[in-house]
Formats: sequence, C-alpha cells, structure tokens
Amino acid sequence: MAKGLTKRTEDFARWYNEIVQQAELADYAPVRGCMVIRPYGYALWENVRAGLDRRFKETGHENAYFPLFIPRSFLEKEAEHVEGFSPELAVVTIGGGKELEEPLIVRPTSETVIGHMYAKWIQSYRDLPVLINQWANVVRWELRPRLFLRTTEFLWQEGHTAHATREEAEAEARQMLDVYADFAENEAAVPVIKGRKSESEKFPGAAVSYTIEAIMGDDRALQSATSHDLGENFARAFDITYQDADGELRFCWTTSWGLSTRFIGAIVMVQGDDQGLILPPRLAPIQAVIVPIWKTEEERAQVLGAAEKVMADLSGFRVKIDDREQLTPGFKFNDWELRGVPLRIEIGPRDVRNEQVVLARRDVPGRDGKSDLPLSNLSQGVGEMLDSIQAALFERAVAFREAHTAEPETYDELRRALAEGFASAWWCGSAECEAKVKAETTATVRCIPFEQPDVGGACVVCGADASEKAVFARAY
Amino acid sequence: MAKGLTKRTEDFARWYNEIVQQAELADYAPVRGCMVIRPYGYALWENVRAGLDRRFKETGHENAYFPLFIPRSFLEKEAEHVEGFSPELAVVTIGGGKELEEPLIVRPTSETVIGHMYAKWIQSYRDLPVLINQWANVVRWELRPRLFLRTTEFLWQEGHTAHATREEAEAEARQMLDVYADFAENEAAVPVIKGRKSESEKFPGAAVSYTIEAIMGDDRALQSATSHDLGENFARAFDITYQDADGELRFCWTTSWGLSTRFIGAIVMVQGDDQGLILPPRLAPIQAVIVPIWKTEEERAQVLGAAEKVMADLSGFRVKIDDREQLTPGFKFNDWELRGVPLRIEIGPRDVRNEQVVLARRDVPGRDGKSDLPLSNLSQGVGEMLDSIQAALFERAVAFREAHTAEPETYDELRRALAEGFASAWWCGSAECEAKVKAETTATVRCIPFEQPDVGGACVVCGADASEKAVFARAY
Repeated sequence: MAKGLTKRTEDFARWYNEIVQQAELADYAPVRGCMVIRPYGYALWENVRAGLDRRFKETGHENAYFPLFIPRSFLEKEAEHVEGFSPELAVVTIGGGKELEEPLIVRPTSETVIGHMYAKWIQSYRDLPVLINQWANVVRWELRPRLFLRTTEFLWQEGHTAHATREEAEAEARQMLDVYADFAENEAAVPVIKGRKSESEKFPGAAVSYTIEAIMGDDRALQSATSHDLGENFARAFDITYQDADGELRFCWTTSWGLSTRFIGAIVMVQGDDQGLILPPRLAPIQAVIVPIWKTEEERAQVLGAAEKVMADLSGFRVKIDDREQLTPGFKFNDWELRGVPLRIEIGPRDVRNEQVVLARRDVPGRDGKSDLPLSNLSQGVGEMLDSIQAALFERAVAFREAHTAEPETYDELRRALAEGFASAWWCGSAECEAKVKAETTATVRCIPFEQPDVGGACVVCGADASEKAVFARAY
Repeated sequence: MAKGLTKRTEDFARWYNEIVQQAELADYAPVRGCMVIRPYGYALWENVRAGLDRRFKETGHENAYFPLFIPRSFLEKEAEHVEGFSPELAVVTIGGGKELEEPLIVRPTSETVIGHMYAKWIQSYRDLPVLINQWANVVRWELRPRLFLRTTEFLWQEGHTAHATREEAEAEARQMLDVYADFAENEAAVPVIKGRKSESEKFPGAAVSYTIEAIMGDDRALQSATSHDLGENFARAFDITYQDADGELRFCWTTSWGLSTRFIGAIVMVQGDDQGLILPPRLAPIQAVIVPIWKTEEERAQVLGAAEKVMADLSGFRVKIDDREQLTPGFKFNDWELRGVPLRIEIGPRDVRNEQVVLARRDVPGRDGKSDLPLSNLSQGVGEMLDSIQAALFERAVAFREAHTAEPETYDELRRALAEGFASAWWCGSAECEAKVKAETTATVRCIPFEQPDVGGACVVCGADASEKAVFARAY
C-alpha cells in the first residue's frame, strides 16, 4: 500500500528507495552495503535469468560454476585488472580458525580464476571455442550503497569465452551485446543505446568494452550490461594457449560479459510512476491480479466462484486472486498498483451477471485504462492486453529518451543539456576533453554509439575535428 | 574415454575421483578445498535444482536471496550453533582496503541472518507461515577435500520457514524430508532411509534433525539431505515474535532444510560402475546419444541424414548426435559410457536400410543391453526404454542396499556387519553406547528410521531395553 509514496519529481532517489522496499522487492541487510532480495524481487530476477539463460543457450553457451575465492596473486597477474579492482575487495584472511598464508579475495569478477582453468582445459584448436557462462554472487566493497544499484554483494551472470582468433572473439563480444539489447528491449521494455566505452570507462584489463546504456526516469544513465573483448590480455597473463592445426602454439582471444541485479533497478526507474512500480508483462512475477468485489454474502459466493473460474481459464498466464477478506477493493487496487502488476481484473456482481470482467491496465491510470472483456474472449483478450501494455511501456520509454536527449553543438549547450538529460555530441576522442566535461558537469561519456552519422563534426568541447558522436550523461 | 579407469573393488575412492574428473563433472580449483563444477556436472545440478525447485513451489515455498556475509556476533547468539560451526569458518577481516571493525563470516548456513530478517518482517499471525527457500553458495573450511563430497565452498538450497505453532513447524520439517525422499528415489533413483538424527549427530541449534541416508557403492552411508525442526531456539535468539489473534506476543517456531551439490556425489557413487558414470534418465543432461556408424562416404551421408531425422523425432528428449569425424565408433561408445549417458542409439547403413536403430542401454553391458527399435515406434520406444532404465537403476540400488544391510543382534555381529555395510540394530538411545560404537568401529548412528518394528528388543551394545532400532554405518 502506498504509505505516502514520495513523488518522483519531488525526490527521485527517495521515491526509488520507498518503492523498492514497500513493493517488497528488497530490504537492507544487517551487513552494511548488502541487501536481501525478497521473494517478489527474486521472482522478478528469476524471470530475468530465464530470459537471458534461454538466449545464452540458444547462442551455444553452457553454464558452469567457478569458485568464490581467488588467490590474491591471481589478480596481480593482469596489471590494469588489479589496479581497477583493488579498492573494492573483500579479503578473507582467516580460514578454519587459522590465519591464511595467502589471503583470498572474494571474487569481484572471475576472469582470473576462469583464465587459470581455461589454461588447464584448452590444449588444441579442437577445444575451441569455449563458451561458458556462470550465474553467481560477486562482491565489490561499496561505501554508498543503494538497493540493487550499488550493493557490496550482488547477483549476476558472467560469460567467459575463449577463441582461436581475434575476429571470433570480437564477433562474440558484439553478439552478446546484441543479446543483452534484445533482452532489455523485448522483455524489459527498456530501450538501450549500444556502443563502446571510452578508454577511461572501459573494464580494467579489456581491449574494448561494449555497453548498453539506458535513460532512467530522473534523466540519468544506467549502464545496463557490458561485453568485453579482452584481446590477448588475460590469455597472456594466464597462459591460455592452444596448438593450431599446423602444430603452432598460440594465445587464445577471450571475452567476458555480464548483467547483474542492477538491471532490476533499471526496470524500476524506467517504468515506475508516482503510484509505484510498473512491471513489463513479460517479466512480471504476477501478470494479472484478480480482485473480486462484493458486498453481501450471496454476492461473495458468486463473485469468488467466478474469480476461480477466470483464474482457471487463464492458466497460460501468471495470475493471482486477491481474496483477502479483511481488506477493501480500493486498498487492494492501491496495493497491486504499488507492486506494479501490469493488469488488474475486477469481478463484481454486475460482471458475473453480464458474463464479463473489467480490465484495468496499470500503465494507463483511471477510467481511460479500464475496459470490459466478455468471458467468451477471456484468454485471448488478456493476452492481447498484456502485449499491448508491453508495447506501450517500450514506446513510452523510447519517447521519454527522445524528449530527454539533446544534440548540443557548443560547450554551453552541452552543459545545459546535461542538466536535464542525455547529450549526443561530437567528441574528438581526447581524454582531456572527456575529463573536462566530467570535472565541470559530473557527466561522463556513456558510450560511443555504434550508429553514427555519415559525416564528422567539431568536438563539442575543443572544436577539433571529430569523427564520432558520443553520448554524455550523468550516470548511476 | 576411460583412460585406464580404476576398478571400484580395487580402490573406490580413486575410482570416484577419476570418474568425476574424466567425465568432466568437476575439477579441482586453484584454491585448496574448492572445486570447479564443469558444464556437464553443472547441467546435472541444474536438473537437480529444477526437480527440487518444482517440488518446493508446489508445496507453497518462494525463493529469495540473503547476504553472503554474516556479522560474527550473529553466530554467537545461538550457543550450540556457534560451537558447531566455529572450526569451519572463513572470515573476512578486510573490506574496501580497510580492516573491518567487526569481522564478517562467509555464511556456512543462514539461520542467523535469515532469523534477523524474519524478526523484522513478521509482526502478526497474519504474516505466518513464512515459507522461503534460497539457492546459494556456502563455505565451510575443509581440510580433507573431495570433489562434491567435501569442499570448502559448495552450492545448495536452504529452506527457512517460520510458523505459529510447534505442530506446524514439525509438520513442515517432516514434509520437506518427504519431498527430498521423493526427489531422491523418483528422480535420482537413489533409495533412502528416512529417520531422525541422534542427539550427537543433529544440526547445531536444532530441536530435532531429520535425514535421508543412502548407501554408496562402497557400503558407506551418505547423508543426502536434512530437515530440521528448530523449535523456538532461533526465534528466541533473534527475537522472531508474532502477535496472535488474541493480541498475545509469542515466539515463532522455525525450520530449516537443505540439499547440496554433495548429492551429485551420491548419484555417482550409487549408480556408477567400472565403465564409468551411470546417470538416471530423469536427471541426465543427455538422455540419449546418437552414434552414427559408417565406412564409405556414401554411407556417411545416408547415416548422418538418418541420425538428424532421429534427432528431430526425439525433440521431447535431451538428445545429442556425436558426429565427431576423427573418432571411431568404439571410442565414442566408451566415451559416452564413461559419461553415463543412459541410452546410446546406434545407426549404421544396415539400420538405415531396415528403417530401425539399435538401442544400447548403459545399465546392461554388452549384447544383453542391445535391442532393435523400428523407426515407426521411435519416440515411444525411446521413452519406454528410458523409463525402464530409470526403474532398473532404482531396483538395483534397493537390492544392493538390502544385500548390504545386516540385522546384528550381538555386539560382535554388529562389528562384523559394519565392516561390510549398514547395520540395523536395537539401540537403547544412550550416548555412551553410541560413542563406544564410534570409537571402536568408526561407524555412527546414521538415523533412527521412522519405520520401526512393533515390539522392542535388547540394545546391541549394552543389552538394555531398547524401543527403537538405529541404522549404524561408516559414513562420508
């Protein structure tokens, strides 16, 4: 129930925190920086997992599991990698009652330990490619935690692949970015911009990092998933070699790619409104909630009987009946709106008589979102309505991004644009210009989109020739 | 391929290790005591997960996720609990580059941190029961690691429930033991004895611990899953209370129950033979492997075409074609036997002509296990064969247990029996008699079975009156 939910325009961060907790997606754990993912939030994560896992398997990947603990010395084998992750590490120094000779790192990511195993497993070109994904928890120490968005421990998947050639590895990294974009847009209704990261923003140890970036309801960017072409960097650090068809020993080319529980935060911040969460039908743990409405005992029996029948007829969907006795229909409406159930199905005595139900779509408030549906057309009608909600959420999010993306041509315009959204602007590619924007606006280069204009322009910061546009934004 | 696999009768422990590694179920990790679960082993675990998860959801449970790290002080709140787990803990003392004020324990199990959250979430009898399960990794420091059986980190599920009454909690603990037994017997073909643990063997902090115990191929017992009635112990330690319908504040009654990747070890040790692994069809990642057999190029095209068609017709099963070019059929037969694929489907030129395939069941070696199956009856025939293998594996395991379970009436008979299997014997229930058996034979009371004779007898150790029989065995 919306216990005085803060308005998004009033204080977006507070609105977010209230929603996540009141909708029972997650709660703070007793350990600073950690969270508890509650059943409703976890069911959403299970649907995210299922949607991704299916795509990973369709593209030839298998799941496996690598250890939580990594010897400290492993991280030190790749210079950029250890530098990038050192400040965020949790370190086990005592095991089985004794001080350890070599401290163990709780994995912040698994390139190193997986690289070590690949070096052992891969001998010949016949063993390639190795296409493995892992669903796991990882730990990165977090001083300013926010539920889902920044937590010391989070859940994610991390894909790790090894290939015979640079081209194959590059194609894999790009393919997995496409998989993420397809998932984000078609299942979560979150439109994303595909592109590559700037040098300063890339993954520590990567040759090239690719990203999908999405705009949140407060105009900030959220990096929603990344895919890295690791070149030969980890293969050289961990001696991942193979004998090619001519008997020549060569280094493998590796990739890694990940999406985490952070994505739940993106769904909340892209889709939610002042009434609460709005979940895209394809991922919603409950796609439709049936609320029976009655006054007299006689009506109660009729209406509950009809509700059970509707529930049975909708067995192809994830449906729940809210038959709690002590609560009013109005209370229930608010409760399920807060929890973002995409479709409400109301059944009252008049509906029973008319052999119909009333549908109320979550994304369109009030009377405009209500329609009658005859029972004769129930399952098809509900299916079409859910598809329509899914499509409408995506269209709305695309329109929001368009309305909040400027194309500044001068530095002044860039600064103004960044105060209220994304800026797509020419960038000469220099670290200096990037650093200046960050220092003066806190915005960063979110990505250099794959889609680029045919001709070049003048760098929005220094005016030098620029061949590519970058997307600048303040980010989570 | 069976690179000189050790015979089970020669050295069971070595046979086990070779199988797990050669069949690519798991490998040793670079961190002592930890393992890597390879894709084939993980696919088996995914099927174990699916079989259990379905049963948990059917019995009204939801999944959630609780944090990896537990404040040290939490463990100390339940006296038996901290005493039991202290020697096995991994401790994080450094986080984000700084020494922590309070060290964090990497969860060995989650009663404490979940108890803390339940205390926060549960207010009224209307909030009960709380029925939550978590799929997670846990860490218990292990000095003598063995793949799957004893590893410092392992994967498991842990269910945690809270109830208004003792009776409800007790019923839940018993129900979940039934769920485990049903899963073990009907999906893994592993027959189990259901019973309760003795005082000395129960979970640290439990009121009563229930267990399913199975006999392995070397006559040792493996505790395959446990379910604990925790009484009010954790509710009192963590102040998990609720207001009953009369407004009275009461403690909840809680349970916990778990099954881990150790169960993979049970499947290997119950079903395997000297040729390798034998996987029960309901859990096997690959239920049937098609091996095409050809000599000439013309035959190759024919046979591969027929194999593809067979594969398409068996879309309801988990089937793989082994069309590797450089390997002989004989090599492939050995390879898939080692990996325990329950059914091999051979297709040669003669089979193509005769519109049939040859089935070779993994559990019956040589000619006796072979039969022809006409293509006209393919899908039904394969389904029936897989059912028959599943049933045969279970029957064989039951017969093995019966042949290796003695009913000793004297202490001398008990000692002899324990050298070669399980012993079901009268036990007076005293800790002294239990300790004596353990000291002199290394065998322990595995459980006091629920199924008991109608009349009592004389304790096999001290001769005193005994009302229950116990199952004694040496255990993993």
